Amino acid sequence: MYRYELSPRYAETDAMGHINNTVAPVWLEKARDPIFELFMPGRDLSKANLITVKYTIEFHDEIRYEHDVAIFTAIAEIGNASFTVTQRIMQNDSLRATGRTTLVHFDYRNKKAAPIPEDIRARLQEMAEA
Amino acid sequence: MYRYELSPRYAETDAMGHINNTVAPVWLEKARDPIFELFMPGRDLSKANLITVKYTIEFHDEIRYEHDVAIFTAIAEIGNASFTVTQRIMQNDSLRATGRTTLVHFDYRNKKAAPIPEDIRARLQEMAEA
Amino acid sequence: MYRYELSPRYAETDAMGHINNTVAPVWLEKARDPIFELFMPGRDLSKANLITVKYTIEFHDEIRYEHDVAIFTAIAEIGNASFTVTQRIMQNDSLRATGRTTLVHFDYRNKKAAPIPEDIRARLQEMAEA
Amino acid sequence: MYRYELSPRYAETDAMGHINNTVAPVWLEKARDPIFELFMPGRDLSKANLITVKYTIEFHDEIRYEHDVAIFTAIAEIGNASFTVTQRIMQNDSLRATGRTTLVHFDYRNKKAAPIPEDIRARLQEMAEA
Repeated sequence: MYRYELSPRYAETDAMGHINNTVAPVWLEKARDPIFELFMPGRDLSKANLITVKYTIEFHDEIRYEHDVAIFTAIAEIGNASFTVTQRIMQNDSLRATGRTTLVHFDYRNKKAAPIPEDIRARLQEMAEA
Repeated sequence: MYRYELSPRYAETDAMGHINNTVAPVWLEKARDPIFELFMPGRDLSKANLITVKYTIEFHDEIRYEHDVAIFTAIAEIGNASFTVTQRIMQNDSLRATGRTTLVHFDYRNKKAAPIPEDIRARLQEMAEA
Repeated sequence: MYRYELSPRYAETDAMGHINNTVAPVWLEKARDPIFELFMPGRDLSKANLITVKYTIEFHDEIRYEHDVAIFTAIAEIGNASFTVTQRIMQNDSLRATGRTTLVHFDYRNKKAAPIPEDIRARLQEMAEA
Repeated sequence: MYRYELSPRYAETDAMGHINNTVAPVWLEKARDPIFELFMPGRDLSKANLITVKYTIEFHDEIRYEHDVAIFTAIAEIGNASFTVTQRIMQNDSLRATGRTTLVHFDYRNKKAAPIPEDIRARLQEMAEA
């Protein structure tokens, strides 16, 4: 599990005065950067090989603009070509939202899912256990 | 069930060349406008009383920039204070993504969930059967 | 001059209850699609060859969520490799914002600005005069 | 002048592989948080009293996803009710974009521009000279 911190943006609020619900997947994707780094070292987009196939986000409480947010990311399951990430969005030490995202390792040349390479699998396993 | 059409925006693409996965909840929220209209006539934000508590989005295929998108929205379940909406994002007659969103009717004055008013419930029921 | 219409999205509002100022460039870019179409027929992104080098946006009045918006786009100046577009965002027949954007025709292979091809220039000229 | 650092988000890239031009105003607004803090202590949105009336953004070079960005913000001019902020977006020590934004101190109760209070003016002045 690792932690990512961010400060909400004014443009991310909505007319209710809180962070709009559609912002959560943007934050959660950003918090997955260390995973992108595993699959594309240097976050080199020309080597991009991950596809987001599904996510579920649950909102437990309002997320406010004026306080920082901490996002905790963990690896929940590792399959042959896919894996699942669970994430929590915390603000002022209280749980605001949880996310569960499934990503697939993709071979863009052959346009199909591809097994997760062994070295990356080992690193994901370490993340899962940490 | 009703249909909403939109033309993707260039700013919604990402480095993979397709519409980024985080755009889907924005489109799906927009496509729920007729439901907002039921709960806040004239979409008058001072009367806003719906909270998004959960959504799941599954991606079946790439969504591209250059073709229009049609979103089909249906009411799946109606509870006491909450209801669930299912949505499909289609492009060129093929299914690109599906969404399932749960919303709660909220009493902002008393800060708690509130039963869906009978007249709105009847309209949701009509949408569910249509 | 041509017209593009859109319906604002709830996610585009901010805590003030209006459309956030950062949304305007997204709308203006979208309203320039017919110009993209000139430079990349079929809006085929693999042929993308326009760079936004500058824009100025002035806000004259609040843009609200609940009413449709009409954007009027005109070509103001055509140079050798660049051209300037002026745009107006209208709501309920009143002017809400104006934009002025300069774009450069770019040769991505040689990584430098390139003269606007004659056939495209003729079409821009037509737009400028319309 | 002060400095704000951020790490670009994958969702902010576009099909060209770089950060989309419409992202710049979002970043620049975020980098103005210390100014919001002056006008609404604690960034308490119920006290919001600033309106963005104009901005110009110039792009000098591509902004890339994989490297951090530093934004430098300075106060350029202070008028009676309005002031102008100049900002630079740097990446890898090279200038990528510059922004110039005019904001107006607004009295929401009376719906008109209002003189900048003296204590805030003094703080802006300090920022202008720093």
